[in-house]
Amino acid sequence: MSSHLPSQLVLDVLGTDTPHFVDADAPFIYSDDLAAVRGDGIFETLMLRDGDVKNVELHFNRFVNSSAMLDLDAPDRETWLTATAMAAEEFTRRVEQARAQGEDVPNEAALRWVYSRGRESTGAATGWITISPAWPQLMKDRAEGVRVMTAERGFRIDLSQRSPWALVGAKTLSYAANMAALRYAKSHDFDDVIFVSDEGLVLEGPTSTVIGVDGKTLVSPPVEAGILPGTTQAALFKVAEARGWTVEYRPLTVEELTALDGVWLVSSVRVQARVTHVDGHEMPRPSCAEEIEAMAWEAVS
Amino acid sequence: MSSHLPSQLVLDVLGTDTPHFVDADAPFIYSDDLAAVRGDGIFETLMLRDGDVKNVELHFNRFVNSSAMLDLDAPDRETWLTATAMAAEEFTRRVEQARAQGEDVPNEAALRWVYSRGRESTGAATGWITISPAWPQLMKDRAEGVRVMTAERGFRIDLSQRSPWALVGAKTLSYAANMAALRYAKSHDFDDVIFVSDEGLVLEGPTSTVIGVDGKTLVSPPVEAGILPGTTQAALFKVAEARGWTVEYRPLTVEELTALDGVWLVSSVRVQARVTHVDGHEMPRPSCAEEIEAMAWEAVS
Repeated sequence: MSSHLPSQLVLDVLGTDTPHFVDADAPFIYSDDLAAVRGDGIFETLMLRDGDVKNVELHFNRFVNSSAMLDLDAPDRETWLTATAMAAEEFTRRVEQARAQGEDVPNEAALRWVYSRGRESTGAATGWITISPAWPQLMKDRAEGVRVMTAERGFRIDLSQRSPWALVGAKTLSYAANMAALRYAKSHDFDDVIFVSDEGLVLEGPTSTVIGVDGKTLVSPPVEAGILPGTTQAALFKVAEARGWTVEYRPLTVEELTALDGVWLVSSVRVQARVTHVDGHEMPRPSCAEEIEAMAWEAVS
Repeated sequence: MSSHLPSQLVLDVLGTDTPHFVDADAPFIYSDDLAAVRGDGIFETLMLRDGDVKNVELHFNRFVNSSAMLDLDAPDRETWLTATAMAAEEFTRRVEQARAQGEDVPNEAALRWVYSRGRESTGAATGWITISPAWPQLMKDRAEGVRVMTAERGFRIDLSQRSPWALVGAKTLSYAANMAALRYAKSHDFDDVIFVSDEGLVLEGPTSTVIGVDGKTLVSPPVEAGILPGTTQAALFKVAEARGWTVEYRPLTVEELTALDGVWLVSSVRVQARVTHVDGHEMPRPSCAEEIEAMAWEAVS
């Protein structure tokens, strides 16, 4: 990481009346914060690029939905958006400083909203934003694609609505299993994971949405399968429709997935990573790849 | 809470070479700690009573197992046990101080080990211990029992061993769904929850193990059902066996559970809370209750 660009910026969003920057190199969270001891809170990761934060509305809507599912007070729109704008401005200023000093740094960062139930001992909610500059692996995945391992999720979600406490569709801080799947993949010479249901249907990546190309149609698994609604996928589908593509939510087996013209993992910060291999089976780069990737970038611009 | 007994004590276990107390009223965790942003770590909650920490070996073994399942370095036994002893000693000293000043405080606390993968930006693991004095609800539950709601867990765990990333049997920090179930119960006039599988089999509480009495036999659901092995339950079964009881791991439907002589939720800090009602169905206090509860206390002494 560059010496002029900080490895992280941090904004305290809920600690006082007004969002403000805090020292990223000082502790911020109390030892009894329920985010840290129970994974009890929600988050969103947004892309900050060339001074703009992308798809803020899609992310904020999902943030509000997640908060409702966890019985957290609805996040205050003005507070979070003000803090987000402050973060974007400050990061951009730092990038310009670094560039003025001759460093070739991309004006790109992952901007994370974290909203925790707060301290066990006080009950006061905690909210913060971190901004981390884009990292090399991100660039590599975008350019070269990813070798994917399919993985049974390991649990079958009850989609009956009888169990609201399962928090299906909420983006909670309880991501230990998702992280374990990614670690497993990386230790077995894969780059990423596509979760598969026990019926063999394609679900999602641990931190991404699966999309595929079938002729002139873009496909993605239905959220009713128990996956998180993807913000980048939603924005991409909108762009594609405007360009005359058909878009479709369709259950897909792994066989059906690998028979598609092409498959991508899309997410806010990495934007798009083409799936080059599924369980070792190569997926050649299709002729439409350039157009798909251009639309994905348009979706976040 | 008393003015002389602090609401919390905190020990930094892994931040330096030697465990040491830190200011509980100052932030401790960095904003990018994976405990706080991914629920990526493990924990144990132990009971500290009259100066002693109970069932340390059972907890430490489970802590080590959990760390292995999450690919964390094995926790160093001497470090964690030294820190635990320091915590116990300091809490007891504080209780004695408070008592010397005329306060009637119980010498009881929940002692929590937390071990996180650590900061995203540095990769350094985080480990800490919090000590929180016993709270009034604990005493009430022990004395009066709990009204329980049965709840489908909302996901069915794949027990095939094909999905190690599901972290079945690890006590991770990703507890958002467990906390959501407890909140749901409390907002519907219940005190606690017993999770049930989609086949209708009794699993566990969100923070406890279910045990029941059937004549002269103690029963508990098998861990193979996808539940966490209970430390208090294990200790209780050992005590009971020594006293001539039969102990048994047995799948139980809710109907079979309510037909038992008595049911308890057992856990480290609350020790035992008799289930007085299951979904509104009353379970009268059986004649063996006193003996069961005495054995549960013996199991943590």
